[in-house]
Amino acid sequence: MAGNSIGQLFRLTTFGESHGIALGCVVDGVPPGIPLVESDIQSDLNRRRPGMSPYTTPRRESDEVKILSGVFQGVTTGTPIGLLIKNTDQRSQDYSAIKDLFRPGHADYTYYKKYGIRDYRGGGRSSARETTMRVAVGAIAKKYLHMKHNVKIRGYLSTMGDIICEFKGWDNVEKNNFFCPDPNKIDLLDRLIRNLKKSGNSIGAQVTIIAENVPPGLGEPVFDRLDADLAHALMSINAVKGIEIGDGFAVIGQLGSEHRDEMGLKGFTSNHAGGILGGISNGQIIKINLAMKPTSSITIPGKTITKYGEEVEIITKGRHDPCVGIRAIPIAEAMTAIVIIDHLLRHRAQCSDSIDMINQYL
Amino acid sequence: MAGNSIGQLFRLTTFGESHGIALGCVVDGVPPGIPLVESDIQSDLNRRRPGMSPYTTPRRESDEVKILSGVFQGVTTGTPIGLLIKNTDQRSQDYSAIKDLFRPGHADYTYYKKYGIRDYRGGGRSSARETTMRVAVGAIAKKYLHMKHNVKIRGYLSTMGDIICEFKGWDNVEKNNFFCPDPNKIDLLDRLIRNLKKSGNSIGAQVTIIAENVPPGLGEPVFDRLDADLAHALMSINAVKGIEIGDGFAVIGQLGSEHRDEMGLKGFTSNHAGGILGGISNGQIIKINLAMKPTSSITIPGKTITKYGEEVEIITKGRHDPCVGIRAIPIAEAMTAIVIIDHLLRHRAQCSDSIDMINQYL
Amino acid sequence: MAGNSIGQLFRLTTFGESHGIALGCVVDGVPPGIPLVESDIQSDLNRRRPGMSPYTTPRRESDEVKILSGVFQGVTTGTPIGLLIKNTDQRSQDYSAIKDLFRPGHADYTYYKKYGIRDYRGGGRSSARETTMRVAVGAIAKKYLHMKHNVKIRGYLSTMGDIICEFKGWDNVEKNNFFCPDPNKIDLLDRLIRNLKKSGNSIGAQVTIIAENVPPGLGEPVFDRLDADLAHALMSINAVKGIEIGDGFAVIGQLGSEHRDEMGLKGFTSNHAGGILGGISNGQIIKINLAMKPTSSITIPGKTITKYGEEVEIITKGRHDPCVGIRAIPIAEAMTAIVIIDHLLRHRAQCSDSIDMINQYL
Amino acid sequence: MAGNSIGQLFRLTTFGESHGIALGCVVDGVPPGIPLVESDIQSDLNRRRPGMSPYTTPRRESDEVKILSGVFQGVTTGTPIGLLIKNTDQRSQDYSAIKDLFRPGHADYTYYKKYGIRDYRGGGRSSARETTMRVAVGAIAKKYLHMKHNVKIRGYLSTMGDIICEFKGWDNVEKNNFFCPDPNKIDLLDRLIRNLKKSGNSIGAQVTIIAENVPPGLGEPVFDRLDADLAHALMSINAVKGIEIGDGFAVIGQLGSEHRDEMGLKGFTSNHAGGILGGISNGQIIKINLAMKPTSSITIPGKTITKYGEEVEIITKGRHDPCVGIRAIPIAEAMTAIVIIDHLLRHRAQCSDSIDMINQYL
Repeated sequence: MAGNSIGQLFRLTTFGESHGIALGCVVDGVPPGIPLVESDIQSDLNRRRPGMSPYTTPRRESDEVKILSGVFQGVTTGTPIGLLIKNTDQRSQDYSAIKDLFRPGHADYTYYKKYGIRDYRGGGRSSARETTMRVAVGAIAKKYLHMKHNVKIRGYLSTMGDIICEFKGWDNVEKNNFFCPDPNKIDLLDRLIRNLKKSGNSIGAQVTIIAENVPPGLGEPVFDRLDADLAHALMSINAVKGIEIGDGFAVIGQLGSEHRDEMGLKGFTSNHAGGILGGISNGQIIKINLAMKPTSSITIPGKTITKYGEEVEIITKGRHDPCVGIRAIPIAEAMTAIVIIDHLLRHRAQCSDSIDMINQYL
Repeated sequence: MAGNSIGQLFRLTTFGESHGIALGCVVDGVPPGIPLVESDIQSDLNRRRPGMSPYTTPRRESDEVKILSGVFQGVTTGTPIGLLIKNTDQRSQDYSAIKDLFRPGHADYTYYKKYGIRDYRGGGRSSARETTMRVAVGAIAKKYLHMKHNVKIRGYLSTMGDIICEFKGWDNVEKNNFFCPDPNKIDLLDRLIRNLKKSGNSIGAQVTIIAENVPPGLGEPVFDRLDADLAHALMSINAVKGIEIGDGFAVIGQLGSEHRDEMGLKGFTSNHAGGILGGISNGQIIKINLAMKPTSSITIPGKTITKYGEEVEIITKGRHDPCVGIRAIPIAEAMTAIVIIDHLLRHRAQCSDSIDMINQYL
Repeated sequence: MAGNSIGQLFRLTTFGESHGIALGCVVDGVPPGIPLVESDIQSDLNRRRPGMSPYTTPRRESDEVKILSGVFQGVTTGTPIGLLIKNTDQRSQDYSAIKDLFRPGHADYTYYKKYGIRDYRGGGRSSARETTMRVAVGAIAKKYLHMKHNVKIRGYLSTMGDIICEFKGWDNVEKNNFFCPDPNKIDLLDRLIRNLKKSGNSIGAQVTIIAENVPPGLGEPVFDRLDADLAHALMSINAVKGIEIGDGFAVIGQLGSEHRDEMGLKGFTSNHAGGILGGISNGQIIKINLAMKPTSSITIPGKTITKYGEEVEIITKGRHDPCVGIRAIPIAEAMTAIVIIDHLLRHRAQCSDSIDMINQYL
Repeated sequence: MAGNSIGQLFRLTTFGESHGIALGCVVDGVPPGIPLVESDIQSDLNRRRPGMSPYTTPRRESDEVKILSGVFQGVTTGTPIGLLIKNTDQRSQDYSAIKDLFRPGHADYTYYKKYGIRDYRGGGRSSARETTMRVAVGAIAKKYLHMKHNVKIRGYLSTMGDIICEFKGWDNVEKNNFFCPDPNKIDLLDRLIRNLKKSGNSIGAQVTIIAENVPPGLGEPVFDRLDADLAHALMSINAVKGIEIGDGFAVIGQLGSEHRDEMGLKGFTSNHAGGILGGISNGQIIKINLAMKPTSSITIPGKTITKYGEEVEIITKGRHDPCVGIRAIPIAEAMTAIVIIDHLLRHRAQCSDSIDMINQYL
């Protein structure tokens, strides 16, 4: 089973390479009756789109999405939705020099060892350009979750290098090109990115995702827990090297008496768990942190080998982001939304009858 | 799709509750022709078994595994292997007092909100007792991987509370009941556990898993990457709140020039990636860290509510581990092995023909 | 992906060999809150059980089922249900003579060519004994479907050899050991079976399955249509060589004006389609015919080869059914129920919101 | 889980409606290194294409396929292949008259009852136009199977109405527009179709599919048997109402001594089983018959109701095939190829190691 699909009931399958003809996807299992037009999707795509600010890659992809199926007279029909984005700003010639080289930190070597062949133009299938489709489908998932359940899924930049961005309100997040929630850190971030661009280097980051109003009961023990499926979906984003749910790695130093979230008549009195207990949502805010590695596409020379086994020096040209953590935010929101809608559908498949039992008491 | 299965081609499905009649599983897709007897499995089960040391729960489960099918004359036949462990040391009466309460930090509340009903005896299905089956099947996966590919998958305790255990060789790990690789820390760990037992409290831990000799090419982009599937499998273990691959959260502060692993004629010259690039194994050592929360089963009173909506105080009796990180180690090894064998089979399904292409050059 | 599971949301995985220790299964995705005790399952098992009449094999398996998990205080909890039946009447020595032979018409040769190894005792995994688990889980599916939706799924023997059994009411079906709906044919069937037993031969049969009160809307185009999934499930029963939905092969000679089912204010005015249109149930009776081959286990000598490549003559001893079509009826009912409940859950996952749209008009 | 995907390892997902913007699909799991250009696919599409002969619909779809991804420099890369065909000859206005009616024999009523909404233009998603994508992907599967294993998968018209077409060689099949293997029946078929066109009626048919050189060992007991998966795939084709493997329904009247295929040193001496035993291919020719219903799109008036519950008379205009059995042949070949390649990949995933065991003897 090749791995280009995710989700069980709300199921996304993507295709396309960085410098191919187009990127596309099918999303199967979308509930019927949801109003949906291309601009619903486009607005999230634009948040991810390159060339939007001086802080990301200067590549200019229009990333104009087209709905090919599954929507009739502006409403979803329940049949699979096909989406397509044509690739426009492709400069494949940038890559001819590296066709027999393995760029350090990239998937060139591993794709070659797996398939015996690779599309070397811009990383081919391994390029983060594939994530446009995740963002597009995430917009559909978000719309449904918000419309039917008032669920809100949002992300922000919590750390870049050693700059920690404290959360000071969602209003701040959309006011700057870093998705930074702390207005005092904008100048520092700006300076850091400009220096990295000058030196041809890149930097890591931490992204935080918050999901509010997720109903309790979502998640399928024992393997397809909500946290496990979130970990899967988020770790599948390019450059992610770590995942935390709730207190995450801080739990190592905690006592049981500190960590456990007690309950009172008004609900939980703390949220160390990050909204998930035993793999099932508990109705609290779901909080996730992601560690994003610095992109390996930098202009500082590095050592590598060719597929013929020769040692060479390499400079990764092309036009790249100094910090992929910025554009990863809409992608991580999208993956979170895709997992949550999938579990919502899974939950109502099995447990539609259980509501009466619960209502008997609580 | 209920979530009690994991793996695509090497597929494990478990069943059973903490205080039910038995725990069991089916593992489908095991290659035929592998010598297998119960003692191959039992030895790993014993490493996880409670009651083996003063540092874990005094419950004494014999955890004697029986192979019900799929093995004929001591060899796997390719048909599904059914495994069964009968529950013996059940003291269900320990739990009658909590049947209408939601223990803080446990899955009681979320199971209730999901299913409208729960088996309250020892956490029922949410109990870590379910993980015996993971360890049992992990033993089969490990045996195959070692026999056919010389793959070694091992884990150790890297931190407990604020005690950091440095890796000083695998020999040390099996010499103590903590799976601690640093002989100098045994006394500190011993003292910490004894104090926690006295105070009725618990502590978090970090576990490290190392997989050696994993062939390059395993992992299915773009969603079922090897790291994403490992994150899924490991996050599905009770009490895990964080996952790191390679440098993990340390990447946030790294420059691209530091992080990327360069290559020379002798292979990679560093391993910040932790053995996985673009979601595919690169032939280097795979390194994973897990953050384990302190168990919520402690005897220090806590506040909670009943299903009738009354506030009450609760003490979680029963016999529990002060640090679940210790017994989590064989479980995490098992889940790692299950993911790797699954990807090995997936890889050879699609890419058996690609070997010639690769051999042409490298 | 090995193939010992069926169903997406109501998912059955079986294990066990004819002469192994036990047969067992896990069924995952059962809705919580369903009253369930072993006798609910046992009564259907008894309808399939060998040794119940002079018309089937004299083997006497008690086929006593044990519920190992997923049920607490007599009610399903939503967690996976494990079932187990121990094998008791095993005479493995019957089979030692055939360990290196391939019985004609059996799966001996194909299992050997697939796995390189086979459990030769009674056909091992290829034995119809595996279907006990299907019947057991079918009983759970039937109970839910009947309790919640008044769905009735029943089967009868419609032909054996050249004896055609006309449908003359369900009452007749359970009054004889042939599941024959036509009281006038009992004597003929009795004579046929007795003659076959004497001559050591066997005969084919046709089984008809009727599902009533299936709600409209079940089935997932375009591949997982209800009829396609029924065809899959029913063709997976040992000895089935043909499937018909509605008019089946008779459609070859029909005109469009004859075949299409017209509608009036009281609904459809005919049912050539057999209750399924475009792969989705239409609320009419679902009608399916199965062609069952004559069992190949006969005492008339036949030619075959050994795994060493020698030609030999073989007589299949053991104790076998002269017409497997009889005992296939509860199995086919079970598989039909498993497919329908699965599609019921799949439907409500995606289309819970569509009810309002439909109610707007019809 | 919505049902627009088929296959486990060679996995096809389709999208698109009859009168939407485009039809498309993703096929995931294609082995890397296969030479593939659009004309490889186009030739099979042309065999299915409407407007090619006086015997099928006069609609003229160019059905020009475009490969969007997964192929680089004329060779498959192992990444998902996206295919697209734009809809060109859409006359949606043909359908405005039926937007609130349920055409008898069509999926209009069932789609409406399922989703609460339907794209009424040409049947929307329920149209057989969706099968273009199956044919396209079948061409890829066929190419691989033929190139690597010399497998040939071909079909012919075996019956139309009461005209039985005897098999008289593959050469004959491609020489006429009916895929008829019997040159003596061409005139009869021609006359039948012309009369049906005049009367505005349609007729049923039987299609036969033959797969040669399928290696033994393919098929996954006990549910995903090769015959069960073929039954699923073929029953998912529009208008199919019956499936036979090997002798099919003729087995009802057979004795065990007649049916079972004996073996000698030169292999099997007969093929009643149709190439599959115990759900696994045995190396013989696989033979399948399909019963195709007469299309319900006829111009003879029929009775139906509207979604507002009114009785009305309906004439299905549009441009339709008098016998859908003709164009179904390339579709059925394609589905057979897709199932066989999927099982080939599944087999080598689990059983790559078993070759040595088999070679030891036979």
